Formats: sequence, C-alpha cells, structure tokens
Amino acid sequence: MKKRVGQFLIDEIAKQGVDKIFGVPGDFNLTFLDDIEAHETLEWVGNTNELNASYAADGYARLNGLAAMVTTFGVGELSAVNGIAGSYAENVPVIQITGAPTTAVEQAGKIVHHSLGNGQFDDYQKMYAQITEAQTVLTVDNALTEIPRIIKVAVEEKRPVHVHLPIDIAAKEIEVPDEVVYPTTPKAEDMSTVVEKLTDQLKAAQQVTLIVGHQINSYSLQNDVQTLAEKLNLPVAQLSLGKGAFNEESAQYMGVYDGQIAEDAIRDYVDGSDLVITLGAKLTDSATAGFSQKFSNEAIVMLNHRDVKVGDYTTTAPSLSEIVEAFKGIEFKYEGHFPHYEWPEASAAELNDEPLTQENYFNLMQNFLRKGDVVLGEQGTSFFGAYRLALQEGTTFIGQPLWGSIGYTLPSTLGTLLAAPERRHVLLIGDGSLQLTAQEMSTMVRQNLNPVIFIINNDGYTVEKKIHGENAKYNDIQMWDYKLLPALFGNKDIPTYDVKTSNELKAAMDKIDRNPDTMHVVEVHMDVLDAPANLNEISKAFAAQNK
Amino acid sequence: MKKRVGQFLIDEIAKQGVDKIFGVPGDFNLTFLDDIEAHETLEWVGNTNELNASYAADGYARLNGLAAMVTTFGVGELSAVNGIAGSYAENVPVIQITGAPTTAVEQAGKIVHHSLGNGQFDDYQKMYAQITEAQTVLTVDNALTEIPRIIKVAVEEKRPVHVHLPIDIAAKEIEVPDEVVYPTTPKAEDMSTVVEKLTDQLKAAQQVTLIVGHQINSYSLQNDVQTLAEKLNLPVAQLSLGKGAFNEESAQYMGVYDGQIAEDAIRDYVDGSDLVITLGAKLTDSATAGFSQKFSNEAIVMLNHRDVKVGDYTTTAPSLSEIVEAFKGIEFKYEGHFPHYEWPEASAAELNDEPLTQENYFNLMQNFLRKGDVVLGEQGTSFFGAYRLALQEGTTFIGQPLWGSIGYTLPSTLGTLLAAPERRHVLLIGDGSLQLTAQEMSTMVRQNLNPVIFIINNDGYTVEKKIHGENAKYNDIQMWDYKLLPALFGNKDIPTYDVKTSNELKAAMDKIDRNPDTMHVVEVHMDVLDAPANLNEISKAFAAQNK
Repeated sequence: MKKRVGQFLIDEIAKQGVDKIFGVPGDFNLTFLDDIEAHETLEWVGNTNELNASYAADGYARLNGLAAMVTTFGVGELSAVNGIAGSYAENVPVIQITGAPTTAVEQAGKIVHHSLGNGQFDDYQKMYAQITEAQTVLTVDNALTEIPRIIKVAVEEKRPVHVHLPIDIAAKEIEVPDEVVYPTTPKAEDMSTVVEKLTDQLKAAQQVTLIVGHQINSYSLQNDVQTLAEKLNLPVAQLSLGKGAFNEESAQYMGVYDGQIAEDAIRDYVDGSDLVITLGAKLTDSATAGFSQKFSNEAIVMLNHRDVKVGDYTTTAPSLSEIVEAFKGIEFKYEGHFPHYEWPEASAAELNDEPLTQENYFNLMQNFLRKGDVVLGEQGTSFFGAYRLALQEGTTFIGQPLWGSIGYTLPSTLGTLLAAPERRHVLLIGDGSLQLTAQEMSTMVRQNLNPVIFIINNDGYTVEKKIHGENAKYNDIQMWDYKLLPALFGNKDIPTYDVKTSNELKAAMDKIDRNPDTMHVVEVHMDVLDAPANLNEISKAFAAQNK
Repeated sequence: MKKRVGQFLIDEIAKQGVDKIFGVPGDFNLTFLDDIEAHETLEWVGNTNELNASYAADGYARLNGLAAMVTTFGVGELSAVNGIAGSYAENVPVIQITGAPTTAVEQAGKIVHHSLGNGQFDDYQKMYAQITEAQTVLTVDNALTEIPRIIKVAVEEKRPVHVHLPIDIAAKEIEVPDEVVYPTTPKAEDMSTVVEKLTDQLKAAQQVTLIVGHQINSYSLQNDVQTLAEKLNLPVAQLSLGKGAFNEESAQYMGVYDGQIAEDAIRDYVDGSDLVITLGAKLTDSATAGFSQKFSNEAIVMLNHRDVKVGDYTTTAPSLSEIVEAFKGIEFKYEGHFPHYEWPEASAAELNDEPLTQENYFNLMQNFLRKGDVVLGEQGTSFFGAYRLALQEGTTFIGQPLWGSIGYTLPSTLGTLLAAPERRHVLLIGDGSLQLTAQEMSTMVRQNLNPVIFIINNDGYTVEKKIHGENAKYNDIQMWDYKLLPALFGNKDIPTYDVKTSNELKAAMDKIDRNPDTMHVVEVHMDVLDAPANLNEISKAFAAQNK
C-alpha cells in the first residue's frame, strides 16, 4: 500500500510497541507531526524543551523497551545531544528523528535558519555519529530498507539511533509491501568456546561472585538471570549502575557491591573471590567508589553485550541474550557459602520533631516504597541513598550513575509515567538538580499524571561540595520556593508539603498513601552537608581521582 | 612567573576584558573554579543549566566582545552545544572550557562517569569541531602557545572555540613570561584588487544599495560603516539579521530590507538596484522572507569576513575590518536618489480598553524604548515585531534570526545585563519560548539584576501555527501563571503585571519608568493568532519552502 515516508517510519516504530512520541515542534517537522497526530495508536507528547524530551524518551524506553522523539533541525537536534549521549552510555534505545530542510534546500546549499550559515547540512549528523549506534539520511529510494535497519539496530543493540528526515521526504509516498522486510539476524553465535572456558573457570574457582549490571535491565533479562543464578547456585551482587537487574528477594542475592564502601559481609566475600563474573555490568568509578574493588583483574570474567573476555579468550560477537542463554545451559552447582542479603527492619526509621537527617529520610523512604513502584533516584544524595534501598520484586529502579547528568530524572519520570501509567512513580531529587529541568513538571501537570516527587532542599550542590569546595560560592544555588511549582504550571490544587522533621515526613507519606489520584510535591529540608554515608566515601574517591 | 595552567588561561581571558565567567560546577572542574573564585577581576556566574550558560555567554559576548564559560566533561559540555552552535552561526566569540578527567584517567582509558563508557575521551571534542572555529587539548607543554592561539582565534574570527582542560593540567604550574607571546597577525591583505573592482562597479552602477548585517555588530564596526556610507553617500538598508549595524538616525538610512515584505519605498529601491553590496551581511531565508529579494544575483557584491566576491573575483583572505577600511578609502560619491527612513509617529499607539493587539503592542513599545536601551527580541512574534522598531543611536538590538533557537533571549538577557549593568535591558519574549529556559530568571534574581521582561501570553507557539498547524495540538503549550515566576525564584517583591489592554500596558510602562531599580515582569495577553504583519508573510514563505 502507499504510505508517506513519515507515516511508514512511525508505523514501524508503533509496531515495536511505542505509543508515545516526545519532542518539540519546529517548522522543519510540522507536516510530519500531522502524521503523528493523525496516527491511530501514537500520541504526541510535547515537551518544554528538547533536552527534557530526550530525557523523557530515555525514561520511557527504560520501561517500554524503545522510545522515539522528534526535534527540528539544528537548534532542537543539538539541544537533545546530552540526553541521547546518556542513552548511548547506559544502553537505552531511543530513535531521535530530526525534521530537516527539504532536499531542494539542502542540495542548493541555501543559507536557511537553524543552519550554521555555511550551506552545509551534515554538520549535526557528524556530531550524532559520536553518540548513536547508527544513523540514516532518509530518501524516497532508501526508506523501505533504512527504516527497518535503523529500528533493528536500536532494538538489538539497545542504543540510540539518529534519523535525518528532510521534510519533503516525510511527505512523499512510497509503495510499502504488506510484509515489511527487516534485516535478518545473523545465525546464532557459536558459544561453545565461551561455555567451555567459563565452565572450566567455575570448576576451578574457590569463591565465585556473579555481578550483574545495567545491560540486564536494557535487555529485560532479569528473570533469565535469576533462573541462571538459582540453577548454578551462584551468589549475586548488583552494581548501583543496574540496580533492578536482580530480584532482591531471591535467596541468591547478596546485596549491592560498591567497592570498599559495601556492607562488610558482601565486600569481604566479593573482594575475596577468585572468580568474579560481570554479566552485563561495567565496573565504573561511580559503581565501585573509585575503582576500589580488591579482587584481582585476573579474577574477572567479563560477559557484556558484544564484549566478552574469559581468560585469554575474547570475542565481540555474541549478544547479551545469547550469552545469558549459553550461561544458563552450563551444568554446574556452586557449593561455596556466601552471605545473604539482610532485608532492612522497618523499625530503623525514627519519628521525632528533630531536623530530618538523610539517614532517617531514607529509612522512612524504605518503609514508604511498595511492590510495583517505579523509583527514580537523581544523581546526588538522592541516588546514593536510594540505590541502597531494599526493593521488592516487581519494583523498578532508575538512576543514571554512568552518564550522571544532573536534572535527568525529572523529565525521565515523565517518560516512565507515560510508559506505565498504572504504576506509582516516586521521584527522589535534590534542589540543585531539579533547577536544570524543572519546567518538565509542567508537562506532567498538562498530562494529568500523578507522580510523587520528593525534592530535597539543602541549599546547593551537596554532591559537589562533598567532592570539593564545601564552602565555595560556586556550589551554592538560588533558593527557590519549590512549593509554588504546581501553581506556576497551572494546577494550584496539587498538594504540596513543607517537611523539616521525620514526623512531618511521615504525615506527608500517610497523606500521599490516602490520596493516590493526584500528583504530590514534597519539599524536604535537610542540612546542606548531610549526606548518605556512602556518598561521603565516594566523594572522597572522586576527589582523589581528580588529583 | 609561575602560574597554574588554569590561572594562566583565565588571566589571559581577563586581559581581553572579560569580567564574568558563566557555567555550572561539576567534579571535573571544581579545583579550576577555585582559581576563578580567587581571581581579582573575574566573577563566577553560576547558571541553572549549561544550555542557559551558553546563551548567557553569547549575550555577554555580543556586548562585551568576548565571553567565557565552563562546563564539566560530557554531560555539561554537550548540554551547551546548541548555544555554542548559535554563537558560531551568528559570529559571536565564546570560549567554552570543559573541565575533563585527569591525564592519567584518560590515558588509562578508565570507565568513569560522564564518559560514554568506552574508554575514549575525544568523542565530544569531535562534536565540538563541527561548531567551533578552533579547538585545543591543553597540556603543560602546549599551554603557553595554545592558550594565546585559541583566544586570538575567538577574538579575530568572532566565533566560539573549545578548550579541553584535564583537571590535573589546570592545577599544574608553568613558567609564564612577563610578556605573553600571541601569534602575530599575518601582514595586512593587499586590498587593491577588491578596491579597484568595487570602484569600477560603483562607477558603473545606476542604482546602488549597501546592505549591512550582523558581522558589523560582531566586529563593532558600526561607526566605521556610518563614516563610509556618509563619505560615499551610499543608501543603507539593514537586515533583521544584524539590526543595530547601522545608525537608524543617519541620513543614509533607508530602513530594514526584508524582501517583499519591506516597506514599499525601500523594497522598490533595493529590488531595483543594479548594485547591491552586502557588507558583513547574509541574505538568509528569515532575513529575506524566504529569499524573496528581486534584485539579480549578478547585482550582488559580497563583502563578508573572509568571504569576498566582487564580480568574478573572489577571496577568503581579508578580515571584515580590512574590508571596511579599504571600502572607506574609495573615492566615490553616489548621486542617485534614495528613500529616507521615516521615523514612526508616537501618536500611532492607541490607548483603549479593548483586547490588546500585536500592532498596538509594538506601537506602545516604540514609545516605551529609549536611547541606550538593550532590546532583546525572542524568535517568534516578539522578534518579528521588534526588528521593525525604530531605535535611536546608542540602542542595542539583539535577536538570533539565523540560528533561531527558541528560548535563547532569556538567558542571553542575563548575559547582556552582566556586560552592561548601567543600561536598561528590555526583553520581549513569548510564552512558548520562555518555557524552554525560564529558570535562568532565577539567576537574574540571585544577581539582583533589573531587566524589564515582557512575556506575551498567547497560548502556544504562534510562529509555528502561522507556518503550519494552526489548530494542531502539537502547537499548543501548557498555560503557566507567569506572574508567579519571581516568587518561585525567591523574590516576591518584584513587581508583576497582568496586561490585557493598551491602557493597562501603558499604565505598566509608566510604573516601570518610575521604578527603574527593580526587575519588572509583565504578562501581556494577546490573541493566539494575532501576529505582526511581517510574520504572517514570512510564515507563508517558510511554509512554501518546506514543500
């Protein structure tokens, strides 16, 4: 049947289960947006700016498996690069579509708005080539093959891709067959060498640890990994980069390993292991408190997507799914002892009228969270406190500790809300971070979404102060009256809370529990230099790393 | 004497007359910020995010001649690319300094936060190479030559440059001589061929127009161009891209030429010219209502910075200053008649209690503005209305019609305020644009700055609606209560105004005149589809261009 190229593009995206498209209108994408607005199953979500759109798309993709966004040429496209680079770093598949000037304008090298004024139209494509897995410039002749190719790369590699769509091309009709042909996946990799060498290592090892990370979430392999761990009786540690990769209620679970600041039992066990298998996991500086792991590099078997190293054997061929499938098939039963995760006691939370501390804040948060929540922890005290929370099965945790772009989680929460509107979404964020992207709360209000937002007001970039410049003016920020945000954004009826003590926090949480059908905005005052204990330690490691 | 590399960098920047540095702290720049905070003449201006910092730096540079900003590696650096690309397109010199991981971390290829997790550290440099005139990776060995080189490129080419500063390098001491050696400027270009050919064309022409544009502002050549025009008796038209390049009170001035939508007299004169000299000016789509000029391409003599074409002769060697100097030396007196700019009548503004129209809004604005103001017009109805205002000598106008990034002017106004705190700064902006960058008003509050801000509240992206999708949902935005912005940002005492009629607008303007020592925020309600007449026409041209 005949379809416009733009229609074909969004039809194929919709077939992958995408039902929302993020972005900002601009004259080089308007007629393409007509096709989105007219689409049967897709809904356009207009964001307040393109960086926020890219963060929202990232959040949506982390729950939904794929996301798409649309910007205009140049200005919008370049505002989104930070978010797209974050998706690249953390393996999140986002299709970034740029509505561009017409083929005629580009071929004539005209000096049009949103260009650099040099008659060139590929400058931004070259920039995106650094931060996307694949790129395409659509034409009438290549649309039928390029659109399936680019979507397949995003879905299989779990990384963003870039589509340059001249606005005249979007409107041109092409003949689309009933069965669209996608590139065939190459035949399954031969995993026998990996399996053989991994089996040998498992058998030879005295003390084994399986460390799981963010790629497990990207590929939704949590259940397979649990099956694998249970079958082989492997003890599992999670990284903060990838919390949620393993069911914390499983008997195989030891806890979060974050180098020397981990709980004693898990730290000693992992550091004492002579075989550490990292599965879809990267031992980054932030995940390891500045590379403070004590196990030897030789002990590591790395099983990452397209990046495998077992002893001397390396390969970049297998996908993470193939790796997990092969691993699961290994006949082995670990017989060593290992520490089991100790679920926190609800009684740890104290209730009083003293100024609230970070420690008590997170103890209360532990009791507030419930099965099925989507929890987002913003880089800063929020993330570092939150990744140590115990989460029941079926809870989703989202942070961004590798890319670490402050302000990410607020728009990302818009994305998760739209991907799973039936779930409760709890955003933990600090004042310094919120200021970067605050306006995206407006889109939540506009869409009648009901997140629970805790804003820590502690007067500045505490995470930076902890690293360097505790009293430096550059780490201060302007104090806002955060409780005015809902009214500014058009809904004075959204409940807001001003919390200074644990009693007040508990009262707010109780009221939130009683009123699930509204957004809640809780401003939580804490001391500027109070921080979760692990953040204090990681900050020292970062300061040392920068010497 | 001994200086740390970071100190040397900021000392040299300060010597160029820079007294404010914009940016956002991050752990890869903190110790470098110590040197900025300790600097005798430099002041750190913390922005709410890096895109806003880049816009603020651009605004500062447009008044001050040079600006500098600091981000952290990756996340912050990439958030700033849209603003830096705009500076590149519109010839504004901004030094973008990225605080980066240490040399040791980079050389070891460690997987640190803010990297793409691939062990590479030059990905972002490659991106910046597309949108900056020069780039450098500082080392102890090259700092003494690279810092002068990069500053000189920014200053001479009036374009942004990128500095990658590993944070250990910033702290390393080097021996700096008393006289820092800057690269010598190559000997002056031989302008004789240009002069000879231009003189021939002037003598042969029947009807001559001199069109001046944005590069005149970048190089602060307004006075020279006026001298030139008066000496040769040349009639001068300005483009919207570059308003302010010519003294509108000069007898040589004809008005703004924007293609077929220009006032009849100037349009007919320019279109009928057989010699059109574009001096530091680009005939972009937005400046010409979609390339609607009727003079022939053969009539054009292009005299742009490093881009000269006179008849068949072309050269990319001379600077704009050299061009203007040579042009000024030509012995010629134009004797043709040309239309003179008609200053608008103050009586054009009507006062009544009817809903305010865009036409009357700008008539009242014409009377409100005064000599010496800095006027910023945001892309949208604000810019298109504002570029037709008559501005007295000594007034500065700032818009961004080539790059055209909505949201630019609010942070840019922060920059202009800090560059010229003694002047009055008037920002004209619309609701759709404001939402992208609204939080930078917080920095204005924090710095106790006193802009006059007019926010047109007309429920959406009117400029987009005019191009396409008049009733499309994607061109709608969430309605905010803009008058809450000052209170949100911590100062409830800032006067706010809710204006729906010309009488109310006049009353607000009178009150503003009586109270110069405070910020003023005026929310101006107008109909969603009301727009300046020229915007209606340009929108049609843009819609046609996208077919």
